Amino acid sequence: MTDSPSSRTTPGGEGPRLLTAEAIARLVGGELRGDGGTRVSSVAPLDRAGASDLTFLAAARYAPLFATTRAAAALVSPEWADAPAEVRARIVVARPHEAMLRVLPELYVPSARRPGVHATSVIGRGVTLGRDVSVGAHVVIESGVALGDRVTIDAGCVVGEDARIGDDSHLYSNVSVYARARIGRRVRIHSGARIGSDGFGYVFQDGAHQKIPHVGRCVIGDDVEIGANTTIDRGSIDDTVIGPGTKIDNLVHVGHNVRIGALCLIMAQVGIAGSTYVEDGVILAGQVGLAGHLTVGKGARLGAQAGAFGDVPAGETWSGYPARPHKEALRAHAALFRLSGLMKTLERLIDRERQ
Amino acid sequence: MTDSPSSRTTPGGEGPRLLTAEAIARLVGGELRGDGGTRVSSVAPLDRAGASDLTFLAAARYAPLFATTRAAAALVSPEWADAPAEVRARIVVARPHEAMLRVLPELYVPSARRPGVHATSVIGRGVTLGRDVSVGAHVVIESGVALGDRVTIDAGCVVGEDARIGDDSHLYSNVSVYARARIGRRVRIHSGARIGSDGFGYVFQDGAHQKIPHVGRCVIGDDVEIGANTTIDRGSIDDTVIGPGTKIDNLVHVGHNVRIGALCLIMAQVGIAGSTYVEDGVILAGQVGLAGHLTVGKGARLGAQAGAFGDVPAGETWSGYPARPHKEALRAHAALFRLSGLMKTLERLIDRERQ
Amino acid sequence: MTDSPSSRTTPGGEGPRLLTAEAIARLVGGELRGDGGTRVSSVAPLDRAGASDLTFLAAARYAPLFATTRAAAALVSPEWADAPAEVRARIVVARPHEAMLRVLPELYVPSARRPGVHATSVIGRGVTLGRDVSVGAHVVIESGVALGDRVTIDAGCVVGEDARIGDDSHLYSNVSVYARARIGRRVRIHSGARIGSDGFGYVFQDGAHQKIPHVGRCVIGDDVEIGANTTIDRGSIDDTVIGPGTKIDNLVHVGHNVRIGALCLIMAQVGIAGSTYVEDGVILAGQVGLAGHLTVGKGARLGAQAGAFGDVPAGETWSGYPARPHKEALRAHAALFRLSGLMKTLERLIDRERQ
Repeated sequence: MTDSPSSRTTPGGEGPRLLTAEAIARLVGGELRGDGGTRVSSVAPLDRAGASDLTFLAAARYAPLFATTRAAAALVSPEWADAPAEVRARIVVARPHEAMLRVLPELYVPSARRPGVHATSVIGRGVTLGRDVSVGAHVVIESGVALGDRVTIDAGCVVGEDARIGDDSHLYSNVSVYARARIGRRVRIHSGARIGSDGFGYVFQDGAHQKIPHVGRCVIGDDVEIGANTTIDRGSIDDTVIGPGTKIDNLVHVGHNVRIGALCLIMAQVGIAGSTYVEDGVILAGQVGLAGHLTVGKGARLGAQAGAFGDVPAGETWSGYPARPHKEALRAHAALFRLSGLMKTLERLIDRERQ
Repeated sequence: MTDSPSSRTTPGGEGPRLLTAEAIARLVGGELRGDGGTRVSSVAPLDRAGASDLTFLAAARYAPLFATTRAAAALVSPEWADAPAEVRARIVVARPHEAMLRVLPELYVPSARRPGVHATSVIGRGVTLGRDVSVGAHVVIESGVALGDRVTIDAGCVVGEDARIGDDSHLYSNVSVYARARIGRRVRIHSGARIGSDGFGYVFQDGAHQKIPHVGRCVIGDDVEIGANTTIDRGSIDDTVIGPGTKIDNLVHVGHNVRIGALCLIMAQVGIAGSTYVEDGVILAGQVGLAGHLTVGKGARLGAQAGAFGDVPAGETWSGYPARPHKEALRAHAALFRLSGLMKTLERLIDRERQ
Repeated sequence: MTDSPSSRTTPGGEGPRLLTAEAIARLVGGELRGDGGTRVSSVAPLDRAGASDLTFLAAARYAPLFATTRAAAALVSPEWADAPAEVRARIVVARPHEAMLRVLPELYVPSARRPGVHATSVIGRGVTLGRDVSVGAHVVIESGVALGDRVTIDAGCVVGEDARIGDDSHLYSNVSVYARARIGRRVRIHSGARIGSDGFGYVFQDGAHQKIPHVGRCVIGDDVEIGANTTIDRGSIDDTVIGPGTKIDNLVHVGHNVRIGALCLIMAQVGIAGSTYVEDGVILAGQVGLAGHLTVGKGARLGAQAGAFGDVPAGETWSGYPARPHKEALRAHAALFRLSGLMKTLERLIDRERQ
C-alpha cells in the first residue's frame, strides 16, 4: 500500500497543475513572504504535507505543527507571518482556510469527462440521449428514459422507465432511479441513493396492511445534491418535490409527498415523514426527525437530533425532543440538571406541604 | 424536461386505462353530478390536474384550488357538492381520499411482467428458476439459489448462494441478498436493501475484536415489504425472522437474531438491536431505537424517536427517551417546561429550606 | 420453499464437516456424557435443531425446550448435566455459549475462495491485481486501482480511479469505493457501503450553496469491518481516517475529516459529523450522534441515542441528550419523572412564595 505523493495531486484530475506562491498570493489577495517562485501542485494538512504541497495554519492549536511541516508553501494568518518554519514561501491572509477554498479549484481541475456509452450498458427502447452523455459500465437505462446533454451516469446505476434527467447532472455509481422520476439540471446524486421508491402507505383491511398505490412522482429541482444511500420516496397522488439548490447529506430519508423548498441544507440521517413541507432556506442538522403533515417555516433551523411534532415558525431555531425554541430547550435542560441535584431538599419541602 | 400529461398516466402501466365519471361514481358508491361520460385516465392534485385527470377535494384549506382546477372530474365531500368549479363531473362521497384509493387500482394497472432472463445476467450452477421468472439486466444469481414462480429480480441485484425466494416476490434494482437467506412469497424488497448481512458480533480476545461467525439465517415471511436501503442482518446461531405481512420502511436496521412478528409496521430509520423480540402488530414510528434482548409486546406502539431500554408491555403506547408510557412522558415534558420558568422562585424556596 | 437441514450445514462452506461429541468435548474442555461417537455437522437453537445438529442450553428460560429438542448433541451448563432429554450426547461446560463460539470455526469452514476475474467484470487501464484476487461478475474497477493479494471483490462493486485495497480484504456485493480511497489489509466491507463519497461542505455565496471541493482521502486501516449501507465521506483537505481494528455496523454515517482511532466499536445508525475525533477504544452505541469538531476521549462510551455536543472525557460513559455523564443523566431522568407527579403540590408552594 504505497502512497506516493503524486497520487494525491490528481483527484480525478487531468494531471497535476502547478501554481506558484506568487500566483496564489495574487489569487487570495495575500501578502507574499519568501520565494514567490515556489511551486505547489496539491494541498495537505501541516503534518502530512510534502515538498509539492501547499498547507495552511489558521488555529493556534495547530501552530506546533507549523515549525516542522515539510510543505513547500503555507497560507497563514498574520500572527504567524514571521513564526519560524521551513516553508519556502508563506502567504499571509486574514482567513487562511477561506483562502485555501479559493485555491482548490485552481489546483484541482475536475476530470475531463469521457463522453460515450459503455459497451456493457443496457439501453432500453425509446431512450433519448442528449449530447455528450457519459454512460458507464453495467448501467441499465430502461425504456422511455430521457437524458439531457452532458449527463454522466456512473457504473452500476439503474434508471427506471420514463425517468428524466436534466443537463449536466451526475449520478455516481450504483444509484437507483425509479420509474417516472424527474431530475433537474446540474444535480449530483451520490452512490447508492434511491430516488422515487414507493412511499410507506398502507390501509389495514381484511386482516392485512393493503398497499396504497403510489402514482405520484419524485421531482428533484436544479442544482440539488443528494448524499450517498439517501432515499427519497415518490408521492402517492401528489409528487414528492425537492426545491432547487437544496443540498441533502448521506442516509437521509424523505417520505412520500414531502415538499422541500429551495436552498435548504438537510444533514446526515435526517428523517422527514410523509406530506411534511420544509420551506425555503431551512437547515435541518444531523438526525433530526420531522413528523408527517407539518410545516417548517422559511429559514427555520432545527438542532441535531431534534424531533418536531408540530409546525416550526419561519426564521426560528428549535431543538430537543419534542422540539421547542432553542433557548427554551436549553433552559429546560439546565433546569433539569440543577433540579436533579436538589431533589432531596425539594421532596422534603413537598412532603411538609402535603402534611 | 418536458412533462407530458401522458407520462403520468402509465406508472409502469400497460398503457392508459380510461374510466368514466359514471363508472367511478358506481365504484365508490358516490353521487354523480355533471357529465357522467367524462373520461379520466390518471389522477393528480387540484393544482396540477389537467384535462384527463381525476382530482379530489377533502379539506377546506384546499377549497380555493377547486375553483380553478383544470381537472376533468373530482371526488368531493358533500359540502363542496355545489361549489363553483370548472370540472365537467363531480362525484360526491363522504370520504374523497378513501374513495380515491379505491379508484387507483382501477386506473393504474401494474406493468405487464416481462418473463425471461436477461442475456447479461449471470446465473450460477444448480440454480432453480420457477415458471415465468423475470431476471433483469446485470443480475447475478449465485449457485444453488431457488426462485419460485413469477419472481421478479430487477437490474443489478445480487442473490447469494443457496438463497430461496418464494413465488411472486419482487426485488427492485440493486438489492443484495446474502447466502442462504429465506425469502417468502409476495415479498417486495426495495432498491438497495441488504438481506442477511453479517451481524455485529465480536469477542475481545488477544488484543482485537474477534469476529463471531454468523451461521444463522435471515428468514423473511410472506407478504413482507422492505424499504429502500434497509439492512437486515442474519442470525449468529439462531435466525433473524420477519413475520408475515410486516411492512418495513426505508433505512431501517434490524440486528442479528431479532424476531419481528406478523403485521408490524416499522417506519423509516428505526434501529433494532440484536436478539430483540417485536411481537405481532407492533408499530414503531420513525427513528425509534430498541436496545438488544428486550421484548415489545403484541400490539404495542412506540412514538417517533423513542428509545426503549426495557420491555414494552403489550398494547401500550410508549414514547421518549428513555421510553415510558406516552402519557407519563407527555406529563414529564410538560412539567419540565413549566418548571424551567419557575426556577428562580423554586431556588429561593430551596435555599430557605436549606438554611 | 423447502428448507432441508443440509442447506444449513454449509454457509458458504466447502461442504459439510463433521465433528464427534468426543472431539467437541476435547475442544471446549468439557465433560462428555452419552455417546462420544455422535456426529454433528451444524448448529441450531434447541427448538429448530435436527438429527445432525449441535445445540446448547445456557439459560433457565430455555430449559423446557431441552426436553424435546431433536438435536444430536448439546452443550449444557452443569445444572442440566442430568436433565432428561433425548440428545445422544451432551457436553457439560461452565459457559455453553462461549463454548459454542469455539466450536463454530471448526464446523463452518469458510468457502474456498475462487480466484479469478469474472468475464463480465470491467477492468480499467493501469490496474494492478495482486496474486489470487477474486473479482466477481459485473464488477467495475476503474483505471489506476491497485488490489493486493487475495483481495475478494464480490458482484456489482465499483472501485474508483486510483483506489488501493490491501491484501486479503473483502468487498461484499454492490459496494462503491470512490476515487483514491485507501483501504488496508483484511478489511471487510459489507454490501452497499459507500467509501470516500464527497463530504457535505458548502459556502453560501452569490445566492447559492457553493460546493467545497473535497481533495482529501478516505483511509481505512487494517482489520476494519464496515457494515451494510454505511457511508464514509472522504476529507476536504485533510483525510477521513478509520483506525486499525475498528468495527463499524450498518447504516453508520462518518463525515468528512473525521478521525476514528483503533479498536473502536461503532454501532448501527451512529452519525459522526465532520472533523470530529474519536480516540482509540471508544464504543458508540446505536443511533448515537456526535456533533462536529469535538473529541471523544480514549475508551469513552456513549449510550444508545446519546447526542454529544462537546468533548467526552477519556474513559467515561455518557448518555442522553445533550449527553452527560451516565449517572447524572439517569439521576436527571429519575428526578424528572418524580417531579412530574408532584407538580400540583409544587405549584401550590411556588404560588404561595410568589404572593
